[in-house]
Amino acid sequence: MKGINETIQKQLEHRTIREFKDQKIPEEVFGLLMEVARRTATAVGMQACSIIRVTDQELKYKIAGVCNQEYVARSPELLIFIVDQYRNYQIAKEKSHTAETARDMDRFFSAFTDACMMAQNVVIAAESMGLGTVYFGSILNDSEKICELLKLPELTFPVIGLGIGYPNQSPQLKPRMEMKLRVFENAYAMLENYLDEIREYDEEMRTYYDLRDPGRPLDSFSNQVVSRYNNGNPKRQEILNIIRKQGFDLMVK
Amino acid sequence: MKGINETIQKQLEHRTIREFKDQKIPEEVFGLLMEVARRTATAVGMQACSIIRVTDQELKYKIAGVCNQEYVARSPELLIFIVDQYRNYQIAKEKSHTAETARDMDRFFSAFTDACMMAQNVVIAAESMGLGTVYFGSILNDSEKICELLKLPELTFPVIGLGIGYPNQSPQLKPRMEMKLRVFENAYAMLENYLDEIREYDEEMRTYYDLRDPGRPLDSFSNQVVSRYNNGNPKRQEILNIIRKQGFDLMVK
Repeated sequence: MKGINETIQKQLEHRTIREFKDQKIPEEVFGLLMEVARRTATAVGMQACSIIRVTDQELKYKIAGVCNQEYVARSPELLIFIVDQYRNYQIAKEKSHTAETARDMDRFFSAFTDACMMAQNVVIAAESMGLGTVYFGSILNDSEKICELLKLPELTFPVIGLGIGYPNQSPQLKPRMEMKLRVFENAYAMLENYLDEIREYDEEMRTYYDLRDPGRPLDSFSNQVVSRYNNGNPKRQEILNIIRKQGFDLMVK
Repeated sequence: MKGINETIQKQLEHRTIREFKDQKIPEEVFGLLMEVARRTATAVGMQACSIIRVTDQELKYKIAGVCNQEYVARSPELLIFIVDQYRNYQIAKEKSHTAETARDMDRFFSAFTDACMMAQNVVIAAESMGLGTVYFGSILNDSEKICELLKLPELTFPVIGLGIGYPNQSPQLKPRMEMKLRVFENAYAMLENYLDEIREYDEEMRTYYDLRDPGRPLDSFSNQVVSRYNNGNPKRQEILNIIRKQGFDLMVK
């Protein structure tokens, strides 16, 4: 296709990599990833997110326990991206400002957004160098425990985990819904019958083999949706209570 | 520096572009951006975010009004990335599932994270093709109004706006804090005196000229922090009330 350059080629080939070679990422390469992180767009220049680089193997096991995914502990690099209003709050306090707006949900969401974008920027940079990546949304299975393990002070909060290493597997490209179902012009368009619209996609998903479960293909997308909605994890559902515990003011009326 | 490839080179040169040439983005190029969006990592494969492509000029003016930034209306492409649990909720309902967990904050945050990552993936793809980008966090100045303007149904919510076009300006690279202040090993490290640590950075920021205000350099970073914390926008601070209004269950105890 016209216009496809090397960057876009890699983006179109994105796969989650869960098994890595037993090979460390050179510090120089890691430094480059952090320089890319540093240059990520950030809301009004506030740079209100940070990274915890987990190198301690015992700590990795504990985080893998929260994630309920043993392979988390085998990530050559394990990064936890966090909301960080603590740093700027301290800066403002040192300048004799009360800075209590640091606690509001506007600051929380700005910092959360920054953290996600930084993570994705690092993913792209890593993949461009032949590294593989895996996001761990599962750190939020117990966000309170993650705060404790990483000694996160008030006004910080875990957003997403990221494993990085040299790939030791080569998964199929996972089928995705057509974008015509996800891009709307000027207003959201509700459809009459979604199952009709995703019929082909549902079929396509049944031909995909997940390397985590190699014996059989995946279920249809619509069945996966139902199965996901069947499971509510109270600690994940009640995340706002932990966000408040970290010092943020929910301002719920 | 060793290891720098074309992708990373572009990432390191990232600047926000606010002025664009009066030149449309070819549909083929836009289609490529949407293919990249489609391939972005997504929590447990649920693809619970969507995009509203704003092409109606009147609507652009209205959104620019919410943003309080007139140049929003001049973006050749204006995309609003949204949380979208509505689609999967409908899919589950069509399969006779009550799907009430679609309303919990776990689903909200998963979808919010997906939306941010998709936006950043599109930004990287756009910049790789010589396009310029600008994020509009300012759509959240009045999230309720944005929901209304874009006719967002329940279980959807605006996350971030993105303007894309051919650059008509060439801003300086904006100074950023050193990453040693933002990357911690195994545990968050609180510092004794932040103003000491950012002294050089504070100075460096004073040499940066923002094209929005070309007459004089910016203020030091620490002064910018104080000035940002001075301003609390109630509609932004009370965002959770609008999220609830869109059908999500905050589950706050």
